[in-house]
Amino acid sequence: MAQQIADRRDIDFVLYAQLNVEDLFKTDRYRQINRKMADMVINEARRFSLKEILPTYAAGDHEGVRFDAGQVRVPACFHQPYQHYRDGEWLAMAEDPEFGGQGLPQIIAQAAREYLHGANFSFAAFGILGHGTGKMIEVFGNARQKALFLEKLYSGEWSGSMLLTEPAAGSDVGALSTTAKKNADGTYHLSGNKIFITCGDHDLTANIIHPVLARIEGAPTGTRGISIFLVPKIWVNDDGTLGAPNNIVCTGIEAKMGLHGSPTCSLTLGADGPCRGLLLGQANQGMRIMFHMMNEARLGVGQQGFLHGSAAYLYAAEYAKTRIQGRDLTADRSAEGRVPIIRHPDVRRMLMRMKALVDGMRSFTFYVAYLFDLEATATDPDERARYSGLIEFFTPVVKAYCSERGMEVCELAMNVYGGYGYTREYAIEQLMRDCKITTIYEGTNGIQAMDLLGRKLGLRKGEIFMHFLQQVRATIQAAEKITDLRALCEQLEAALNRYGEVAVFLTKKALGADIKLAYAQAHPFLDVTGDIIMAWMLLWRAARAYPGRQVLIAKAPDPVAHIATNREAAFLDGQLKTAAYFITTALPVTIGKIKSIMQGDNTATLNTAEKAFGG
Amino acid sequence: MAQQIADRRDIDFVLYAQLNVEDLFKTDRYRQINRKMADMVINEARRFSLKEILPTYAAGDHEGVRFDAGQVRVPACFHQPYQHYRDGEWLAMAEDPEFGGQGLPQIIAQAAREYLHGANFSFAAFGILGHGTGKMIEVFGNARQKALFLEKLYSGEWSGSMLLTEPAAGSDVGALSTTAKKNADGTYHLSGNKIFITCGDHDLTANIIHPVLARIEGAPTGTRGISIFLVPKIWVNDDGTLGAPNNIVCTGIEAKMGLHGSPTCSLTLGADGPCRGLLLGQANQGMRIMFHMMNEARLGVGQQGFLHGSAAYLYAAEYAKTRIQGRDLTADRSAEGRVPIIRHPDVRRMLMRMKALVDGMRSFTFYVAYLFDLEATATDPDERARYSGLIEFFTPVVKAYCSERGMEVCELAMNVYGGYGYTREYAIEQLMRDCKITTIYEGTNGIQAMDLLGRKLGLRKGEIFMHFLQQVRATIQAAEKITDLRALCEQLEAALNRYGEVAVFLTKKALGADIKLAYAQAHPFLDVTGDIIMAWMLLWRAARAYPGRQVLIAKAPDPVAHIATNREAAFLDGQLKTAAYFITTALPVTIGKIKSIMQGDNTATLNTAEKAFGG
Repeated sequence: MAQQIADRRDIDFVLYAQLNVEDLFKTDRYRQINRKMADMVINEARRFSLKEILPTYAAGDHEGVRFDAGQVRVPACFHQPYQHYRDGEWLAMAEDPEFGGQGLPQIIAQAAREYLHGANFSFAAFGILGHGTGKMIEVFGNARQKALFLEKLYSGEWSGSMLLTEPAAGSDVGALSTTAKKNADGTYHLSGNKIFITCGDHDLTANIIHPVLARIEGAPTGTRGISIFLVPKIWVNDDGTLGAPNNIVCTGIEAKMGLHGSPTCSLTLGADGPCRGLLLGQANQGMRIMFHMMNEARLGVGQQGFLHGSAAYLYAAEYAKTRIQGRDLTADRSAEGRVPIIRHPDVRRMLMRMKALVDGMRSFTFYVAYLFDLEATATDPDERARYSGLIEFFTPVVKAYCSERGMEVCELAMNVYGGYGYTREYAIEQLMRDCKITTIYEGTNGIQAMDLLGRKLGLRKGEIFMHFLQQVRATIQAAEKITDLRALCEQLEAALNRYGEVAVFLTKKALGADIKLAYAQAHPFLDVTGDIIMAWMLLWRAARAYPGRQVLIAKAPDPVAHIATNREAAFLDGQLKTAAYFITTALPVTIGKIKSIMQGDNTATLNTAEKAFGG
Repeated sequence: MAQQIADRRDIDFVLYAQLNVEDLFKTDRYRQINRKMADMVINEARRFSLKEILPTYAAGDHEGVRFDAGQVRVPACFHQPYQHYRDGEWLAMAEDPEFGGQGLPQIIAQAAREYLHGANFSFAAFGILGHGTGKMIEVFGNARQKALFLEKLYSGEWSGSMLLTEPAAGSDVGALSTTAKKNADGTYHLSGNKIFITCGDHDLTANIIHPVLARIEGAPTGTRGISIFLVPKIWVNDDGTLGAPNNIVCTGIEAKMGLHGSPTCSLTLGADGPCRGLLLGQANQGMRIMFHMMNEARLGVGQQGFLHGSAAYLYAAEYAKTRIQGRDLTADRSAEGRVPIIRHPDVRRMLMRMKALVDGMRSFTFYVAYLFDLEATATDPDERARYSGLIEFFTPVVKAYCSERGMEVCELAMNVYGGYGYTREYAIEQLMRDCKITTIYEGTNGIQAMDLLGRKLGLRKGEIFMHFLQQVRATIQAAEKITDLRALCEQLEAALNRYGEVAVFLTKKALGADIKLAYAQAHPFLDVTGDIIMAWMLLWRAARAYPGRQVLIAKAPDPVAHIATNREAAFLDGQLKTAAYFITTALPVTIGKIKSIMQGDNTATLNTAEKAFGG
């Protein structure tokens, strides 16, 4: 099979049929973009990813990152594609051309990233971190910092990182102990130990600009006293030339379950010589600045989880159509004719679940990317604030739900492959190993769930949450006009009402003495939120696919046969089927989860003696 | 932490408080066994496993199996523990002493195996396959075959395998193409290619006895024409001495996601020289004989999944008690005191889920092991048949549910560890990689679900299924006498009634024109069955723990403080809490799954055009 990474037809459907992205091309900001140009970008991302990045996927995993004599070396096969990645200006697609970006809408960049990031995330991470570091400087840096670093980062000539975690400060960032001491020249001397630093050291770029979270001597304890510094691996002189290396020593890289092509570094700063950094923004603003990047990173991690699922699903669907095994269940016992395994109901069940999740996650991640464009092009400040609020609300859900469901899809894909899927001969086992980290990094999913319940539900006194519910209702109202979808609308409406109830229930609990009981259900609540969003997205798709489907089958003498044999008819009809499947078979389980949250005895969870856990 | 593999206190609780295994020591068959002896066996298995097998876990994964110049070499660290494993006579604990077994009850062997198999499954597999091959010969072999092979296999001097899968014959065994041609001396010449053969070649034992599925020339096509042969790696002369090697060539080993210490071999038989085998049992009886072994193997794989979960849970619980991170949620914002992460509600939620599943799976797998002893010691033939029927009924559930829930526990354990869990520094990532194969091999979980719905529900016209429901009801009736458990009893009773309805619903469907619709729900039905069994087991535990708990807290001036500080009080009280947690928070989701089966639109799943899947 020609690997596809992502489903090109479906990307178009989401962009143009579901989200009506062409509306964006009518705005002042994106007048110069049109569908043809956007398609060219996506097609070129696809071509480049398939031809140059995808071949590094297994090879990069096999060779892995090496740590020799204090030097981190990336897989050899990364170097040439990285040059071409830079040449293609893929790192800063949606950034301002003034700083070296291409000025594309976020939603188009998102579509292109399905291929660029989906082909090999270990490879893509170098560019992502360079871009993220650049974005932080663009938003919070001063003129000098922008001049020194920005174009180099957005072009990929240099890369970036994020030095946050320390051995005793993971989820608890406020506990960090790295210090910054002001030098006479206004720079700071950084001193401390950082761990789990993705792309913290490597030989892919000539320099690395490290954003470092540290506490200025005398600053308050906890998160309030954290500042952020730009610490180049090699000092950058005021004229832009490289100076002496800073004293940043990579003391080791992690041996990990997956992402073997991506170095996860332990770094020691300033222990044995000067380690100079520039303060980014104001002192003690580190958390705010970091979160600006972190929120985008969280969306990126959610997409990463989804992309592993998307690739795994496409492999599994192709395998299921071509792997011949066993007879059809309704065939005569004596029948010798063996069938592709997609004909077996349990394989079909797994593929349907995978399809629903992958379709739903694509729509969800694209929708959130599109909200950035809607925010950027809205003229009404209230409208802008609503879009921005929705982005904030959805961020923990994209991160946690898509990472977990991406993992589920990888596991189902392996089950479809059977024993073959467990071997390195096929990509599935690597996709699964690589995917698992997405439930953990950039804030564990437990942290995301707390964020959703504790901060996001109450955004602007709950107005954003109500706006989210209204958006779902608007989709239901549009779909209700289609008779064939009415029953599904009713079921989603009923589930949405129950969902509203559980949100109120948990919010009240979280504000009272039962706060721990509420937080013990924060993750199930996030999970339920994701299910509702999947159902919403799939209904939205079905409603948009319906008219086209009707036109196609109206012309066909035998509609069923036409759907079975015509690719486009199958695609559009598949949208209806997927919505029907998810809303009627997944939502009853979601309602069970809601009942569990509202009726479950979580005092048992919280009050079990600690000694009762473990042996 | 001193690794524990399995929870010794809990093993005792299941054996003696839940299952009343001491009743067995009063039977004629096991009169010579007593609790002290049984405990000695389990303790010695624990000691040996911790001291000698567990150290090979990471090392064996790291070194892996090598394939050099046609030779398969196991990790070097396996050799000495394997000798000691043999010396300790751990391979055939429950077998007849006449054939080199130790004559222990299955349930005691099961408890010992928690440690022996849980310490390193890759290592244990060699003994398991030797034992399985021996068992097949004990049951189906003739006197000559028993004399030649049995003691050597049960002692572990030689090992075994199972040559079933071929490239085009995986789940579809009947499609196999390996042939057997009768030689003049009554032996058969075997010819064909087999893949995915666990322990198919290695240097750990002097010989390997391969059971091989093949078709005698002229035999019917499909499964009806399959016979089984004993094909030694090195021919065994009638006097027991070794003869010439058979022409069995290992052409390669799989590079796998996990179980790196276990060779998964491709074998070519008889392509380039004589490959002689002995027919086991009668011609064309191969499937029946293979299934005898396969059913035990399936129970073993379910236990394997559970054991990975059990080890992962113990690691995670210990980590959560010792890893200090963040403040207590209800602490004052200014509080500096940081707490172990077990105090965070979301970590607690994960541990509670893991505990419930691990406790429930231990009870379930032990209960099924105990059914073998009850069957063996029952004097009434009807009673024996009922026990045997229950074993048949539970087999696919143990295999599929425990493999999936074992995997879930491993994933939750990694989430508890956060980033550390993704590194090779801790055992979790290996446990997860190793665990995943359990959902696939010895019959994929899809095959297990078909078996449950298509064969096991209707065993003896449904009598076995009704007997299962009665067993659950008996537990409820006993627990109802305890006022504190009455509400839980009502909830389980209600869920059980719904479960009975869905079983009838699906059975009817499976027998009619809707057979495919039924089978598309076979896996969800198996999943629901497992949930009900977990709730049953946990209620059973709670009822048995209750009296002891009451005695302990009655004596304490402050019961809550006593439970928090006293290990035994915490353990017993934990049984009540775990049942309350699972029945009130997991069963509502189970009922959602039942509604999904009964109301879900599975025509959508089955009627989506194949072209709609994938890109």
